[in-house]
Amino acid sequence: MLYSFIKHTQNHSIAGVVFFYLSGDFLLRKVISVKKGGEILKPGKLHLISTGTQKSEQLADMIESIHPEIDFIHLREKTKTAKEIYEMVELLINTGVPPSKIIINDRADVACVTNVRGVHLAFHSLPVELVKQTFKNLTVGCSVHSLEEAQIAEQQGADYVIFGHIYSTQSKPGLIPQGLAQLSFISQSISIPVIAVGGIKPANSADVIGAGAQGIAVMSGILGAKNPLKAVQQYRSYLSKQYDV
Amino acid sequence: MLYSFIKHTQNHSIAGVVFFYLSGDFLLRKVISVKKGGEILKPGKLHLISTGTQKSEQLADMIESIHPEIDFIHLREKTKTAKEIYEMVELLINTGVPPSKIIINDRADVACVTNVRGVHLAFHSLPVELVKQTFKNLTVGCSVHSLEEAQIAEQQGADYVIFGHIYSTQSKPGLIPQGLAQLSFISQSISIPVIAVGGIKPANSADVIGAGAQGIAVMSGILGAKNPLKAVQQYRSYLSKQYDV
Repeated sequence: MLYSFIKHTQNHSIAGVVFFYLSGDFLLRKVISVKKGGEILKPGKLHLISTGTQKSEQLADMIESIHPEIDFIHLREKTKTAKEIYEMVELLINTGVPPSKIIINDRADVACVTNVRGVHLAFHSLPVELVKQTFKNLTVGCSVHSLEEAQIAEQQGADYVIFGHIYSTQSKPGLIPQGLAQLSFISQSISIPVIAVGGIKPANSADVIGAGAQGIAVMSGILGAKNPLKAVQQYRSYLSKQYDV
Repeated sequence: MLYSFIKHTQNHSIAGVVFFYLSGDFLLRKVISVKKGGEILKPGKLHLISTGTQKSEQLADMIESIHPEIDFIHLREKTKTAKEIYEMVELLINTGVPPSKIIINDRADVACVTNVRGVHLAFHSLPVELVKQTFKNLTVGCSVHSLEEAQIAEQQGADYVIFGHIYSTQSKPGLIPQGLAQLSFISQSISIPVIAVGGIKPANSADVIGAGAQGIAVMSGILGAKNPLKAVQQYRSYLSKQYDV
């Protein structure tokens, strides 16, 4: 019922943030900004993040069959040079991936010269505010790990944040996960989309969206799966279920 | 006599490339393009390249006293993050270094957000052509090690090349230096400025300019000197002598 209404308002491009008091716990629940930057945003986005360990050809082979089911592909290639990331982007585009789906970590310059969707910034990257001001065509996202960081990112003009890690994950050993309650708190506290990351399996994708995330970001859950296409379809299936709540 | 003529033509902003047949060997000798991008170019430029091993504060302290004597400061900080290079640039500017003197290695995005002079590209960087097309306000240079690379850089629109290494240097152990003859050959073969790098001491600066380089690039010769200011003054002294040939 709730999601039927959200979908309805989206279809009519009503801009803004709509608040609902859910029955039961009266949790103040925010629905994602319906229109942002001229584009309709729908809940349940699936972001794929590259592992940084695969060769370009290997990654392109995997992505060729799954990209139609994925909303955004983040190239998080910390050890690759600008030239290598540029060549990886060219390969993905030649494989059929729309540039509008590609987001490059850290390197705004590579994102600009390849005309892809955007750049994703981390704590070691350039300030969000300057990147937004300088590269006006780029969607600019930012990794955050607390309410304070999320609020700063929003104030600086970030288009979205990636928040995590939500569940225990091998890539963050020994670190206490943020959990759904903190995800819900962050999502309610800022008005830009929150993408949840970290240990998200297909079966708990719907819970994550239910807690207020606009989407989920997955790395090994897809690229480390025996059958990446099947994994993507499972994520999609659970993300779609959320619409029927 | 020759240099008096060059200086004279520069003072009158005559654009283009002037050729001379020198007496003796009738070597076709090229004088640097007099006007390029609206700026008068003079032979004998002194480029300083950071070592990549110094902390920002340490580098800023050294540069504070010497930058008035230096034409360009290249930040070649391969292991530093975008944020760290950005903060280094901010520190240098706050120290009094004009942004128009600062060139950043590899990271065109950092150069753009800090509004500095340009970006210097290496073999592992983005293609010169794309960087020139995308970031029109940046001066774009390129490291080259052969005639072929120099010609490609020129064709792709590079504003200058850095060519080397000219003499034996500790930073290129075991590699045969290019030497003055090859520098002269490269300088005659392309019409953009050639900056010579590698093992250049104050006493041979004039020879390097005499071989056709528009300037020299120095790293340890200044930043590794016991007295960097004295070293800069020595380079300047020998570079000035060249004008009196």
